[in-house]
Amino acid sequence: MMIVDNLQYANWSEKIFRQMREGGVDAVHVTISYHENFRETVLNFEQWNRWFEQYPDLIMKGLWAEDIDRARETGRTAIFFGFQNPSPIEDDIGLVEIVHSLGARFMQLTYNNQSLLATGCYEKEDTGITRMGRQVIKEMNRVGLVVDMSHSADRSTIEAAEISERPIAITHANPHAWHSALRNKRHEVLKAVTDAGGMLGFSLYPHHLKNKSDCTLQSFCEMIARAADSYGVHNLGIGSDLCQDQPDSVVEWMRVGRWSKEIDYGEGSASAPGFPPMPSWFQDNRDFGNIAEGLAQTGLSQSEVNGIMGENWYRFYKENFVPT
Amino acid sequence: MMIVDNLQYANWSEKIFRQMREGGVDAVHVTISYHENFRETVLNFEQWNRWFEQYPDLIMKGLWAEDIDRARETGRTAIFFGFQNPSPIEDDIGLVEIVHSLGARFMQLTYNNQSLLATGCYEKEDTGITRMGRQVIKEMNRVGLVVDMSHSADRSTIEAAEISERPIAITHANPHAWHSALRNKRHEVLKAVTDAGGMLGFSLYPHHLKNKSDCTLQSFCEMIARAADSYGVHNLGIGSDLCQDQPDSVVEWMRVGRWSKEIDYGEGSASAPGFPPMPSWFQDNRDFGNIAEGLAQTGLSQSEVNGIMGENWYRFYKENFVPT
Repeated sequence: MMIVDNLQYANWSEKIFRQMREGGVDAVHVTISYHENFRETVLNFEQWNRWFEQYPDLIMKGLWAEDIDRARETGRTAIFFGFQNPSPIEDDIGLVEIVHSLGARFMQLTYNNQSLLATGCYEKEDTGITRMGRQVIKEMNRVGLVVDMSHSADRSTIEAAEISERPIAITHANPHAWHSALRNKRHEVLKAVTDAGGMLGFSLYPHHLKNKSDCTLQSFCEMIARAADSYGVHNLGIGSDLCQDQPDSVVEWMRVGRWSKEIDYGEGSASAPGFPPMPSWFQDNRDFGNIAEGLAQTGLSQSEVNGIMGENWYRFYKENFVPT
Repeated sequence: MMIVDNLQYANWSEKIFRQMREGGVDAVHVTISYHENFRETVLNFEQWNRWFEQYPDLIMKGLWAEDIDRARETGRTAIFFGFQNPSPIEDDIGLVEIVHSLGARFMQLTYNNQSLLATGCYEKEDTGITRMGRQVIKEMNRVGLVVDMSHSADRSTIEAAEISERPIAITHANPHAWHSALRNKRHEVLKAVTDAGGMLGFSLYPHHLKNKSDCTLQSFCEMIARAADSYGVHNLGIGSDLCQDQPDSVVEWMRVGRWSKEIDYGEGSASAPGFPPMPSWFQDNRDFGNIAEGLAQTGLSQSEVNGIMGENWYRFYKENFVPT
């Protein structure tokens, strides 16, 4: 079975890379920027280049879908890059092609807040895609950088799906109807994205799960089976949002960056500001087999399960990472 | 005949791109940094991306030797990138792989002055390759970024040829024995570079030519034929240093950058500070045929002429642009 996890932001280490291999994970889309500007993001690319040099038997740089084939043939995990914010392109549309040349393949137009491009899901008012946003979506389409609206507000997301000439993605979220977290997506949003051929990656971040850390595997998998009925099984994959081994200072960085002097608890709270514990059945990269089994038990066919576990992202990568 | 010019720094325009096509030029290595830092160099990559978008029928981005084949098949000129100074990598060795990912294929370790890596040809004392220089050469070898010593001092160049585990290049200069310009290279320097499989690209910049702008085609071509006897015909190519349509302010930028508040005339003088006129037989990209004819008249075989006009650089690109 091909396994592709379309979002992780772990505290990377040899231990985690070995767990990817143990879990048979063929590709992971990793976040390398939350609030970093261009130069800081380049330092993060540089850090990954060092890891590729240090662990050539475990991981390899992923640029194209075919790199997943190469990773499978050589027993490695292909690492694809993405940003959860457009901060790496600053106010310079020319950086869209530059970051694609460096390997970026997904970019969120916003991370919770209003950006230069669109409105984030934590803002009170959602004014949709900005002037620069329209230009940047066009340029992202041209070069093969996928629009990711995981942390964006509803109107902005629906507009992005309409404006974009190539399918977009919600790399890590779940349906709001299953669990009404602010970050989970309402039906009309998921419909707009998937009707245009876009993808939804299901999140395992406990704040996105019904009963949070106590969510059952069965509940999670049945939610996916229902989503397959509503949005098309080919448009679904995993985007676990696994933030393994991260200290709580990192979730604070995600939420606050440098945009505020005051603390913002995001999906947490003053009494529980840190990372919540992961569900027992998904602790790390070795546990994707549990999800595959859980999905099979919902009555999805094996080929449908294979699609959700990796083949759908593979097809999406193949169609959307190359320049037009 | 395949034509590769391994150094130009023109004031790029549609006119010049059309002249490349008229001249049957299959590939050009263009300088995109003299004194620019990393971010400024990225802006220059961005500018080229715009030109590739604007003139897709005339030019295309060149990353690998095979792109020259693709350019020939589609009637375009492949543009390869290089730096005449290590300023784009600043003091960060991780930027070596980053600039290679963006398309850089040649980098001079110095431009006239002492750099963080080596000594330039205008310094009084040449202390050879620095501590950082040794590390950067190793990294350049690893990723496939060619060491270019055109503007470096003798000892530094000989040491670079020894330290580098892959062949290096002098992309644009001539033998000092033919014309004793400071920038032309002494026998022992050319020997060190070419004995290790490195390349010499012959310059048409008038300050590098015997009798400068009045240099005859015959004198230039006979100099090349003698160099073939001394250094091996397979190690020779063209690196014209064509700076077409540039205002004199640009040669001042090359010489002074931001390193001095005083004027430095480089190879010029107070009475002739600007770009000298090009020889009558090499005005622009349409004139490579004159050189090919001149070379044939020296008694070099057609296959030797083909090598010098482009095939030697093609082979060098093929062997030296890919990571180890």
